[in-house]
Amino acid sequence: MENNTRRDFLKKATAATAVAATATTIGAPAIVRAEKTYNWKMVTTWPPHFPLLGEGADKLAEMIRTMSGGRLNIQVYGGGELVPALQAFDAVSQGMVEMGHGAAYYWAGKSPAAQFFAAVPFGMNAQAMNAWLYAGGGMKLWEDVYSKFNLKPLPAGNTGVQMGGWFNREIKSMDDFKGLKMRIPGLGGKVLSKAGGTAVLSAGGELYTNLERGVIDATEWVGPYNDYMMGFYKVAKYYYYPGWHEAGSVLESFVNKSAYEALPEDLQAIVTNATIASNMWVLCESEAKNNIYLDKMLKEEGVILKKFPADVISQLRKYSVEVLEEAVANDPESQKVYDSFKAFQKQQLAWSKISEQPYYELFD
Amino acid sequence: MENNTRRDFLKKATAATAVAATATTIGAPAIVRAEKTYNWKMVTTWPPHFPLLGEGADKLAEMIRTMSGGRLNIQVYGGGELVPALQAFDAVSQGMVEMGHGAAYYWAGKSPAAQFFAAVPFGMNAQAMNAWLYAGGGMKLWEDVYSKFNLKPLPAGNTGVQMGGWFNREIKSMDDFKGLKMRIPGLGGKVLSKAGGTAVLSAGGELYTNLERGVIDATEWVGPYNDYMMGFYKVAKYYYYPGWHEAGSVLESFVNKSAYEALPEDLQAIVTNATIASNMWVLCESEAKNNIYLDKMLKEEGVILKKFPADVISQLRKYSVEVLEEAVANDPESQKVYDSFKAFQKQQLAWSKISEQPYYELFD
Repeated sequence: MENNTRRDFLKKATAATAVAATATTIGAPAIVRAEKTYNWKMVTTWPPHFPLLGEGADKLAEMIRTMSGGRLNIQVYGGGELVPALQAFDAVSQGMVEMGHGAAYYWAGKSPAAQFFAAVPFGMNAQAMNAWLYAGGGMKLWEDVYSKFNLKPLPAGNTGVQMGGWFNREIKSMDDFKGLKMRIPGLGGKVLSKAGGTAVLSAGGELYTNLERGVIDATEWVGPYNDYMMGFYKVAKYYYYPGWHEAGSVLESFVNKSAYEALPEDLQAIVTNATIASNMWVLCESEAKNNIYLDKMLKEEGVILKKFPADVISQLRKYSVEVLEEAVANDPESQKVYDSFKAFQKQQLAWSKISEQPYYELFD
Repeated sequence: MENNTRRDFLKKATAATAVAATATTIGAPAIVRAEKTYNWKMVTTWPPHFPLLGEGADKLAEMIRTMSGGRLNIQVYGGGELVPALQAFDAVSQGMVEMGHGAAYYWAGKSPAAQFFAAVPFGMNAQAMNAWLYAGGGMKLWEDVYSKFNLKPLPAGNTGVQMGGWFNREIKSMDDFKGLKMRIPGLGGKVLSKAGGTAVLSAGGELYTNLERGVIDATEWVGPYNDYMMGFYKVAKYYYYPGWHEAGSVLESFVNKSAYEALPEDLQAIVTNATIASNMWVLCESEAKNNIYLDKMLKEEGVILKKFPADVISQLRKYSVEVLEEAVANDPESQKVYDSFKAFQKQQLAWSKISEQPYYELFD
C-alpha cells in the first residue's frame, strides 16, 4: 500500500507543479514543487494571550506554522482586536477571516445544539468528551451542526473539571440559592433560575468589580489557575467545588469551510492534527497548574474551600435534566445531539465506575 | 513576528533548493523547493495491526505520511516481522531502523527508570501521566534517560485505567494471593511476589492456553476491549477491577535521534505532533469501546465482575511503595525520575480530589 500511496502522491505533485527540475541532493530522492503559501487570520473570543485559552490559540497557530514549514501562517487576534469577541463565529462563517477560536456554547443563539460541544450542566468531563467527539460519533454531529454556517469545527482544548465558583456566602442548602445573584451563563444560569437565583450577565472584565461591589453575590469562572489570575480570592471568601455546570469545557477552533477545502490535503491534515495536539496542550497545562494555584490561594490568601452538599448536588442535577430537556424540546437537531451525548455519557459513566472512579479511590 | 518568520523561512527555502523558478499559480505567492523524501521503518512490539496498540502505530504512520505530503513514509512492522518484538529498542538505538513503537516498561533491563514512563503500580492515570509528561517536566526526564541510547521518546497512546485481571478463583483477602500463579510482568509481578504469589512470565500468545490448562491461575492484560479479543472470558470466570498495577499505561514511540535530527524542522514537528494526536486517538478508542465489550461479556458470556476488597488494595499499595523504592534504590537516575513522578502524582491527586473524583460522585 505504501508504494501505491507514494506513486499517487508523486503523480499529483508532478501534475501540480509542472516543474521538470531533478533532485539537488545527491543520493536522495527529491520532489520539486511550487507551493502556495496561505496567510490566514484567526479571531478569538479571548483577550490576547489570555492564560490557557488565548495561549491555546497562539500555540495552535504556532504548531500549524511550524508543521507547514511556513506555508500556512495564521495571525491570531484577541477578542475585539479585529471583531468583537462574540462576532467571531459570524466573521468566520461569512469568510471575513478564515479561522476562529472560542467555545461552542457562545453560539447557542445560532443553534441550541452547539452547547453540547462545549459543556452542559452535569455533562461529560474532558476524557469522556474527547472519546465522544473523536471516537463516539460526536464530531460527525458537530460537523453537521456547523456546516450550515459554512464552518468546520475542531476541538482545540479542554479546561478539565472546573470549579463551582466564588461565593460571598455559604451554600448549605438549596435555600441559599434563593435570591442569589450569580454570574453563570447559558444552561447553568437556567438551572440557577430554577433554584430561585438570578443569573446575571457580566463580561469577564467586569466580574471582579461587580463581585466587590455586591452587584453579584457569586461568580463561576474556570479553575484555580485562571481564577487566581482574575483575583477573585480578594473579593469572595468561599471557593466551591465541583463545577457541576462545566465538567469538561471544550475549546473549539472553527475554520471557514471553503477556506479549509481550498487547502491541499497535507495542510488540511496539519490543521486537524494541530488542533488535537492543542487540545492535549491546554488540558495538560491546566491540570499541571491548577493545584499549584489552589494551594497558593488556600495557604497564602485565606480562601475557604467548600464542597457543595450532596442534597444540593442531587437537586441541581434534577433541575439540569429539566433544563436540558427544555432546551432541546423544539429543535430536532438539538434533540439528536442530546440523545447521542446522553447515550455516550451513560456508557462512559458505567465504564468509569470500574476504571477512573476506583482509580481515585485507590488513594483515599 | 509573522513577517520575520516568513522572511526567514523563504531565505532558508531558497538556500536549500537553489532553484530560481517563479510561481506557477497566477496571483498566488509560491515557494519552489526541492524536497527530500524519507522512507523510514517502524518496528513495533505488537502483533501486526493489533487492536488499539498496533492500530495506534499504523495510525501514527498514516498521520505522518498525510501531514508530510508523502515526504516521510513510514513502513510499520509487527513484532517479529523484521526483528523480535523485544529487540525493537536495540534496533532503533543502533540505527538499523529509524523508529519504534512499544511501551517503556519493556526496557527496564536497559534502565529501571524507563518503567515510570509506561506504568508503575499505583501510578498515575492517563490524564495525570499526560500532564506530567507534557506540562510537568516528565518529557525532559524521559529524553535524558533515552538519549544515552541515541533515542528520542514520544508518548503515542494510553490504555486508560486497565482492569485488574482474570482470575479462576475469588480474591477475598490477601491470603488468596498465596501460591497464586499469575501472569503479571514487571513491578506488578514483584508486588505479587511480596503477597506470596508467583509472577509467571508468559508471552501474549500463550496466555489463553496457559490459563485454560492451569499453568497459571490468573492473568492481567489490558481492558475489556482488548481482553475480549483474547477470549479470556472463556477460560476464567472472575474479572477484577481496578487495575492498580497499570492505571494509565503509556504507549511510546521512539525515534533514532540521529535520524530525527536529520529531518527538516517541519517534519520534526510533524512527527512530534502526530504522536500527540495518536496518543489522543488510542485513549479515545479505548474509552469508547471498553464498556461495549464489558457489557457483552457480562450479559452474554456470564463473566463475574469483582472489585478488589479495600483491605487488599491497601496492602497491595504498601507493597507497591516498597517495590518502587527497592527498584530505584541503587540507581540515581531512577531515583530522580521517581521523585519527579511521585511529587507530580501527589499534587495531581490533591487537585483530583476536588475535580475529577467529585465529578464522578455527581452521578453516584
